[in-house]
Amino acid sequence: MDFETKLDRLAEVAVKTGLGLAPGQELVMTAPLESLPLARLITRHAYKAGASLVTTFYGDDDATLARFELGSNESFDTAPAWLFEGMAKAYGAGAARLAISGENPALLAGQDADKVSRANRARSKAYQPALQHIVDFHINWSIVSFASTAWATMVFPDATESDAVMKLWDAIFAASRIDQADPVAAWAAHNARLHDRKTFLNDKRFSALRFRGPGTDLTVGLADAHEWAGGSEKARNGITCNPNIPTEEVFTTPHARRVDGFVRSTKPLSYQGTLIEDISVRFEAGKIVEAKARTGEEVLQKVLETDEGAARLGEVALVPHSSPISQSGILFYNTLYDENAACHIALGQAYNKCIIDFENKTEAQLVEAGANRSLIHIDWMIGSGEIDIDGVTASGGTEAVMRGGEWAI
Amino acid sequence: MDFETKLDRLAEVAVKTGLGLAPGQELVMTAPLESLPLARLITRHAYKAGASLVTTFYGDDDATLARFELGSNESFDTAPAWLFEGMAKAYGAGAARLAISGENPALLAGQDADKVSRANRARSKAYQPALQHIVDFHINWSIVSFASTAWATMVFPDATESDAVMKLWDAIFAASRIDQADPVAAWAAHNARLHDRKTFLNDKRFSALRFRGPGTDLTVGLADAHEWAGGSEKARNGITCNPNIPTEEVFTTPHARRVDGFVRSTKPLSYQGTLIEDISVRFEAGKIVEAKARTGEEVLQKVLETDEGAARLGEVALVPHSSPISQSGILFYNTLYDENAACHIALGQAYNKCIIDFENKTEAQLVEAGANRSLIHIDWMIGSGEIDIDGVTASGGTEAVMRGGEWAI
Repeated sequence: MDFETKLDRLAEVAVKTGLGLAPGQELVMTAPLESLPLARLITRHAYKAGASLVTTFYGDDDATLARFELGSNESFDTAPAWLFEGMAKAYGAGAARLAISGENPALLAGQDADKVSRANRARSKAYQPALQHIVDFHINWSIVSFASTAWATMVFPDATESDAVMKLWDAIFAASRIDQADPVAAWAAHNARLHDRKTFLNDKRFSALRFRGPGTDLTVGLADAHEWAGGSEKARNGITCNPNIPTEEVFTTPHARRVDGFVRSTKPLSYQGTLIEDISVRFEAGKIVEAKARTGEEVLQKVLETDEGAARLGEVALVPHSSPISQSGILFYNTLYDENAACHIALGQAYNKCIIDFENKTEAQLVEAGANRSLIHIDWMIGSGEIDIDGVTASGGTEAVMRGGEWAI
Repeated sequence: MDFETKLDRLAEVAVKTGLGLAPGQELVMTAPLESLPLARLITRHAYKAGASLVTTFYGDDDATLARFELGSNESFDTAPAWLFEGMAKAYGAGAARLAISGENPALLAGQDADKVSRANRARSKAYQPALQHIVDFHINWSIVSFASTAWATMVFPDATESDAVMKLWDAIFAASRIDQADPVAAWAAHNARLHDRKTFLNDKRFSALRFRGPGTDLTVGLADAHEWAGGSEKARNGITCNPNIPTEEVFTTPHARRVDGFVRSTKPLSYQGTLIEDISVRFEAGKIVEAKARTGEEVLQKVLETDEGAARLGEVALVPHSSPISQSGILFYNTLYDENAACHIALGQAYNKCIIDFENKTEAQLVEAGANRSLIHIDWMIGSGEIDIDGVTASGGTEAVMRGGEWAI
């Protein structure tokens, strides 16, 4: 199969499996400029699927850097709230949402940490109205990846530029099930397996998970009435979508005030252009009270200070060490990939969706149940082949969930 | 001076002369993908000038064509109203607006006229909230051009592709005063000359203009309390901008119900991808009652049916035949250039700005004064070296304004 065929199949999977785009539905897409060939193929598949209109916002790394190089100090507290409010209106009226990711993971690595933090904070705050439609699954949405040169050469530093890009494409196509005979059917089978895992965990109703391994002994209390999710999701508009292409995780909402112990990251976190490596933190009653990192510690500390919820957890996710992405042995410096190579937790905003009957609960009830609130949601990896996980039952007993990074259930 | 220097100067003129961008001001830019190098330079000059944020929307001809090729019939009545409402909010909060033009003038030439018309109508309607901030000069705004390959090869069909692009760039740089010693100073001198013309015409207070030439004997009544404009304008936010780079015209608002006679176009009109050539129309009491064209007549008829005001005039503009753009002898197939080569009129929406004291008049008063209302505003050229224009005074006398296409005042 040649490259063009695979790229076209990825576009088809994005529209059919990722979005499940419905005839007559509008599509709002964001894409890095370099991903233009994929964005164009997605646009074509979307119109074939009956899209009423495809609107794409292209992001330009050069413009982002120009701002950091030349922008006035005051400018870093500005964000296009009017644009995000517009997007929120589109989602409120039923538009689907697709993001093409593939940014340069180290784009802002050399920039002033305070400006990076302020710009991110302003953007996150302005983005809330749009984000809420997404995280609450009012609409069908998805993320797919594009192998940009900057990303590829970071993942494969010893390869030539063109080889690095092709190697990364191969990894993306494999993880996205594009090279299987019928990718859309392969995704249906994969979704069925993930649904079995989440059903098992939902039936168990553990009160907490205990993670143990090198540098880690962490008890993550689960939210009251938590619900496990994974694979395809039915959005509130009735459309079934796969929010992440690829995905290997099942995940739920931890209790924001019931996390205790210490934990060490097992993969680097690439956050808005900065690499944060060897994170080591200690939780007390849900909150991080000590945090260190070998690189990027300053950015990590800024992240934790974003708001009250930034130092608490909003997600816990289980991924077997044998997942294809983990087995590829590739460190992607990209959350969409690395989070599917290992169990992980996320700082910040919880998914309401992972609380049973969330549509009929008030904000106060959701928070009372343990759902964390923050402007941020940042996944970081704590799983490996050396991690054991126990489920803690309501009566205080324990049950093996994972051993040596593999499912024990 | 090398090409990169000229392109950088064009970006500087766009920000300093075109927009007069103020420190702390947000900038909203629209640009065809191919104009990326110019958009990036403008972004840099905007941040240097103190922009708080530059947000650029890139348009993609390929996506537009995919819609016409694959989109469902119903899709052509859809437009991103949510995006234009967002832009309107940005302008309402003080953002400046820059458009880079340079689209393929014949992009939609082969498409179904009904779909083209419906898509344009839906877009024009949705765009109204944003457009109103622009046409009423609530904000500083400007348009500059980029020599796209499709546009250049249309203008210079006998040149090689790369030669055509360089010839068009040369024409753009010349018309935009980029190759003068100090382009920003050259624009200041040019603005002073245009201001002298408009002051003269404002002092005359003609009730009508009569155009005579081959195939043309047209009396264009001017709106009550009309005001001539041209060159730089002070927007209501207090910032002086040059809305068009280049510009050679002085213009005002005709009376929507006082235009009589017949007129022939002197240059082709490139409208949303269709070329409309040799237009010939007859007006009665302000309205076009007969319209023909050698090519594109079907599209012209659809345009005239857009709404009640589409067959009436919203602008009349005077440009001497000796203007540099006219003297270049180039037919640009682009309104921004061709309208500056010849006297012209526009179908559709009038500029409130060209009615004295418009801010303190009600919509009913503006319409009563003669301001036309429509979703469209389409300039077309009626001037040439063979056109004579008389000013008609309140008492019915006449006075020469132009003879043989040149100022007679």
